[in-house]
Amino acid sequence: MADSDPLVVFTPSGKRGRFPVGTPILTAARQLGVDLDSVCGGRGICSKCQITPSYGEFSKHGVTVADDALTEWNAVEQRYEDKRGLKKGRRLGCQAAVQSDVVIDVPAESQVHKQVVRKRAEARDIVMNASTRLYYVEVAEPDMHDPSGDLERLVNALEKQWQIEGVRADLHVLQTMQPILRKGEWKVTVAVHLGDAVTPPRIMHVWPGFFEGPLYGLAVDLGSTTIAAHLCSLDTGEVIASSGIMNPQIRFGEDLMSRVSYSMMNPGGAAEMTAAVREGMNALFDQIAEEAGIDKAMIVDAVFVCNPVMHHLFLGIDPFELGQAPFALTTSDALHLRAAELDLTIHPAARAYILPCIAGHVGADAAAVALSEAPDESEDLVLVVDVGTNAEILLGNTEKVLACSSPTGPAFEGAQISSGQRAAPGAIERVEIDPVTKAPRFKVIGSDLWSDDPAFANEIATTGITGICGSGIIEMVAEMRIAGIVDGPGLIGSPEQTGSDRCFLDGRTYSYLVWDGSEDGGPKITVTNRDIREIQMAKAALYSGARLLMDKFGVDTVERIVLAGAFGAHISPKHAMVLGMIPDCPLEKVTSAGNAAGTGARIALLNTESRTQIEETVRKIHKIETAIEPRFQEHFVNASNIPNSVEPFPILGTVVTLPDVNFNAGDGGDGEEGGRRRRRRRG
Amino acid sequence: MADSDPLVVFTPSGKRGRFPVGTPILTAARQLGVDLDSVCGGRGICSKCQITPSYGEFSKHGVTVADDALTEWNAVEQRYEDKRGLKKGRRLGCQAAVQSDVVIDVPAESQVHKQVVRKRAEARDIVMNASTRLYYVEVAEPDMHDPSGDLERLVNALEKQWQIEGVRADLHVLQTMQPILRKGEWKVTVAVHLGDAVTPPRIMHVWPGFFEGPLYGLAVDLGSTTIAAHLCSLDTGEVIASSGIMNPQIRFGEDLMSRVSYSMMNPGGAAEMTAAVREGMNALFDQIAEEAGIDKAMIVDAVFVCNPVMHHLFLGIDPFELGQAPFALTTSDALHLRAAELDLTIHPAARAYILPCIAGHVGADAAAVALSEAPDESEDLVLVVDVGTNAEILLGNTEKVLACSSPTGPAFEGAQISSGQRAAPGAIERVEIDPVTKAPRFKVIGSDLWSDDPAFANEIATTGITGICGSGIIEMVAEMRIAGIVDGPGLIGSPEQTGSDRCFLDGRTYSYLVWDGSEDGGPKITVTNRDIREIQMAKAALYSGARLLMDKFGVDTVERIVLAGAFGAHISPKHAMVLGMIPDCPLEKVTSAGNAAGTGARIALLNTESRTQIEETVRKIHKIETAIEPRFQEHFVNASNIPNSVEPFPILGTVVTLPDVNFNAGDGGDGEEGGRRRRRRRG
Repeated sequence: MADSDPLVVFTPSGKRGRFPVGTPILTAARQLGVDLDSVCGGRGICSKCQITPSYGEFSKHGVTVADDALTEWNAVEQRYEDKRGLKKGRRLGCQAAVQSDVVIDVPAESQVHKQVVRKRAEARDIVMNASTRLYYVEVAEPDMHDPSGDLERLVNALEKQWQIEGVRADLHVLQTMQPILRKGEWKVTVAVHLGDAVTPPRIMHVWPGFFEGPLYGLAVDLGSTTIAAHLCSLDTGEVIASSGIMNPQIRFGEDLMSRVSYSMMNPGGAAEMTAAVREGMNALFDQIAEEAGIDKAMIVDAVFVCNPVMHHLFLGIDPFELGQAPFALTTSDALHLRAAELDLTIHPAARAYILPCIAGHVGADAAAVALSEAPDESEDLVLVVDVGTNAEILLGNTEKVLACSSPTGPAFEGAQISSGQRAAPGAIERVEIDPVTKAPRFKVIGSDLWSDDPAFANEIATTGITGICGSGIIEMVAEMRIAGIVDGPGLIGSPEQTGSDRCFLDGRTYSYLVWDGSEDGGPKITVTNRDIREIQMAKAALYSGARLLMDKFGVDTVERIVLAGAFGAHISPKHAMVLGMIPDCPLEKVTSAGNAAGTGARIALLNTESRTQIEETVRKIHKIETAIEPRFQEHFVNASNIPNSVEPFPILGTVVTLPDVNFNAGDGGDGEEGGRRRRRRRG
Repeated sequence: MADSDPLVVFTPSGKRGRFPVGTPILTAARQLGVDLDSVCGGRGICSKCQITPSYGEFSKHGVTVADDALTEWNAVEQRYEDKRGLKKGRRLGCQAAVQSDVVIDVPAESQVHKQVVRKRAEARDIVMNASTRLYYVEVAEPDMHDPSGDLERLVNALEKQWQIEGVRADLHVLQTMQPILRKGEWKVTVAVHLGDAVTPPRIMHVWPGFFEGPLYGLAVDLGSTTIAAHLCSLDTGEVIASSGIMNPQIRFGEDLMSRVSYSMMNPGGAAEMTAAVREGMNALFDQIAEEAGIDKAMIVDAVFVCNPVMHHLFLGIDPFELGQAPFALTTSDALHLRAAELDLTIHPAARAYILPCIAGHVGADAAAVALSEAPDESEDLVLVVDVGTNAEILLGNTEKVLACSSPTGPAFEGAQISSGQRAAPGAIERVEIDPVTKAPRFKVIGSDLWSDDPAFANEIATTGITGICGSGIIEMVAEMRIAGIVDGPGLIGSPEQTGSDRCFLDGRTYSYLVWDGSEDGGPKITVTNRDIREIQMAKAALYSGARLLMDKFGVDTVERIVLAGAFGAHISPKHAMVLGMIPDCPLEKVTSAGNAAGTGARIALLNTESRTQIEETVRKIHKIETAIEPRFQEHFVNASNIPNSVEPFPILGTVVTLPDVNFNAGDGGDGEEGGRRRRRRRG
């Protein structure tokens, strides 16, 4: 590069350098370390290196770009334009060569490490850095004068043409590569897994000639109830298809502990459940590949997040030890496996990565939430709650992060609630109760109308009103509390106490009638005092876990709350706070992160550096085991009340004050639990 | 270590140092880097650290050793003495502690890197350095206050107690380790594969408590005709059992090229042959384990050597490309695999190592010969010939090594010889022909007597005389030449020309009668002129290969010749030289290395460093492809003659001169080949 050579300035990186006339833009970019993609290595085949030259004066860069700053549009570019079309103003970086000073913009889609935008405003975008990439190479032909294996010459080509060192090949590649090399006339496209903590780079597949891709990866959230997967392009990071199935293990037990019991009671039970979940996984992958219209063998990487019991069962490890203190995991570190070891029928050389577990009760799903929500990078003290059958709770900021798991039970998912049901069309999901008439109005899944809308009956004609889902029951109980139907200790008042005949004697306690569909053969939907108890237990467990972490952190308040989990996405923060599920926090500081575990899996899939990152983060997280913390029990007992009175706090611009009622003066009380009822101390 | 501390001198290493009174000998040895074995880490369990203290004055070391230089014989030692017995004078290095100056001898069996003695005088011994070793560790119990996986605590124990860093575990270990750790009460013995070029150290198995071992490994010589295996202790290096079976692929074709053809002609043929050889392999392993009385699952490592076609078929690669120029191997580098990838049913985590191939015609078997015979470390210029269906030829010294393969065909194995047969009881293997009477006397396999011994007929009564084996036919032809029955161009003389009616007209040429058993219903064993031709072709191929390498090396003579291969072990060097199979060389400089390929496999099994070594050596070997060397053809044509006259050379103290006869003057000539017969130029 002489001083008289033309100057090439790249945007948005700002990298610049002088290059001899005739230097292709791709070459200049590579020499400057500008992130400009290429699969064919500058041979005008892949069109990945598209760039946009700018013309005119650029005082900012001190450059004036002449109209002929680049070589003329050439035949290769014209061929691509005719075949596929180039966006206006675009050139191929490997064809356009420098003639004089020029400013070159690298559009996002031409960058290897392009950003995948996450939907939530506060979430950082994902930077692409996939495990496996495609490389087009020209391989030397065999020569009897200097004999060497086809593989060795292919490896040499990758080293010389792409600077990938020490690459190895899976046996299945050896078994298939000779005819492919010859079919491609020694020009092939190679999928290279770029290696990880455990393995050097590996050739995963070879295609004859130029193969455009893309390769695909799976981000899988393996839950106790459902298995959900995102199929992503490893090129753009785009989610191509998302799908879910019920976890086939459900037939062995609805919740985790009943599955652990199943394995204890039945010899070979764990192996049965392992086979079931792996079969389910393969069925899901079939489904998602069909939905996306792709060949399952194009899936070369898969990332899994799950709770510890699912983690063990998926790996083929008996979860026996997770069913009893001290809840010892077989391994807590991340696992780098071949997908075939897990009987997964995707690409034969596909890799499987399982995020690290945090502790015996805090699994890889919690690690994925930590990766997605990054409490360790938050300046604010943030409480992240992943609400499910077990709640995983993280509390932290840049200083440190604490984690625990709390056994909320399945009430938040609508289970063990008399009119409860899974979130499905017909389930009540939103509720408002008139504080005067005590009459509810509600919305059901499948309709946007409130139940007091004249068109409502018509809209729900097909589904009917079938029950109350998890988020519905939370709103319901909170609204009953706000309306004075339920008192602080959790008793439903009598018709006399509440002034509403929706409250009726139901055994020894009162129940509240939400909806009576019995005339049309539908259900009678009620909230019983036992339902209130279940919700109280669940929310107390959640609150106590959060409170315990706050104690350990030495704080009385948090600055921000993130509700994660598919269910967390539907909880109304106002009602969660009325119920005392979560500590007090300004309402605008309570956000939902949706399926953060699934997002974490997606980040780990698309950016392999994030794997090393989260492994390190997890090692640094302070694990708190609620089972052995006396303060957890104490918090739990204190937290079972629904706030009898709270400091007025602003909700949606208004001030809500809860009625100071106590229905336990009379005989309707649930004596057995009376002794545990104390006034809940807040903060 | 203060100057006043006692001095500890170790023999045979000569390492010495001062240690505080009370230091166990094992500790002193470790600190000095003395090679003293221990599996239990000094806990008095494994008894691997046995040492022999010496007492009295050692002027050489400047030390006088008092009778109480070590602590007294203790209860741990007594327990071991009672249970197993200690050799006289031995102590346990972990129990005996320093009291005053002492000289300690480390016996060979207490060294990790002990030497395994090779039988041949000129062969260097094998230094033990196995891939997989046993380590006894005490693992921290799980603690809810500081949760971590069982594996992480086990890995930590290996790091702290044995300084093994970055160890990983196979999935099957994860699947089985939790109950084992608990059964052993957190004391376990771990088999650790210490890693190789491709993988970090890996835990292969965990046993509760102290597990003595040993672990086993297999050195396998996968030949076209037979598969032979040595089962070795990975602790002592000892060969526990040796066994062999016919290669089940024989049903697809006797020789390699017919198997390559089978795969070309039959879709799925290669896969069939792969399945056959793998099944055969497993059957052999079953057989050898049963013979040794060990559990096949204790076999954790296996090393394979084979020719390129067997290499590909064993790996599941279609050998198509090896059947045609340019004979491109799929891969020539060494392969580090899991045995399970090759469907081998030994330990589920067992490793498989396949030596590198040298070229498309020079396989891992030749690399193994190079490892065993180490021409690259020879000061003399040595010619190493592995005689089989193909001859692999190495020529070299410390300066450089050349290699080629020569298509000798199966004549040397008794095939395509009219009375030829495999080496088996009843086969003629040694011959002498009386130069006057032209009558042969011979030995057959199964008897030590010559055929002119009166007891001979009786001894061979059960087997009979059935044919001539490979080494027998070589001696036979050479003796026929010495006795003047065959002339230089390879014609058998008429009864008139030879003066013997053992020569008789047999079609257009003469044959020689060796043995007529037809009266007793046995065979009539003859040598036909066509047999002589076959041997001429074979020996010409072998000689031409050697001669080509000598040309390339720029020499006319070699200093040493090593005959390798099971067959090489039985060739008489004298007759080989008479026949012109090998270049001239002082007879005492011609040695047999037996099954050098098998020995090379055993070295690679027992010493993993030798793997890196041979990989490097193979990369440096100059490969010569005979098929494209015009000089090979030239040598071949010239070498088909059996020396018409040679410089007298000393054989076993006498001088042998070959008769200068030529039977081609008359009509018995084999006209079609006459044009190719030239006088062979020697040297």
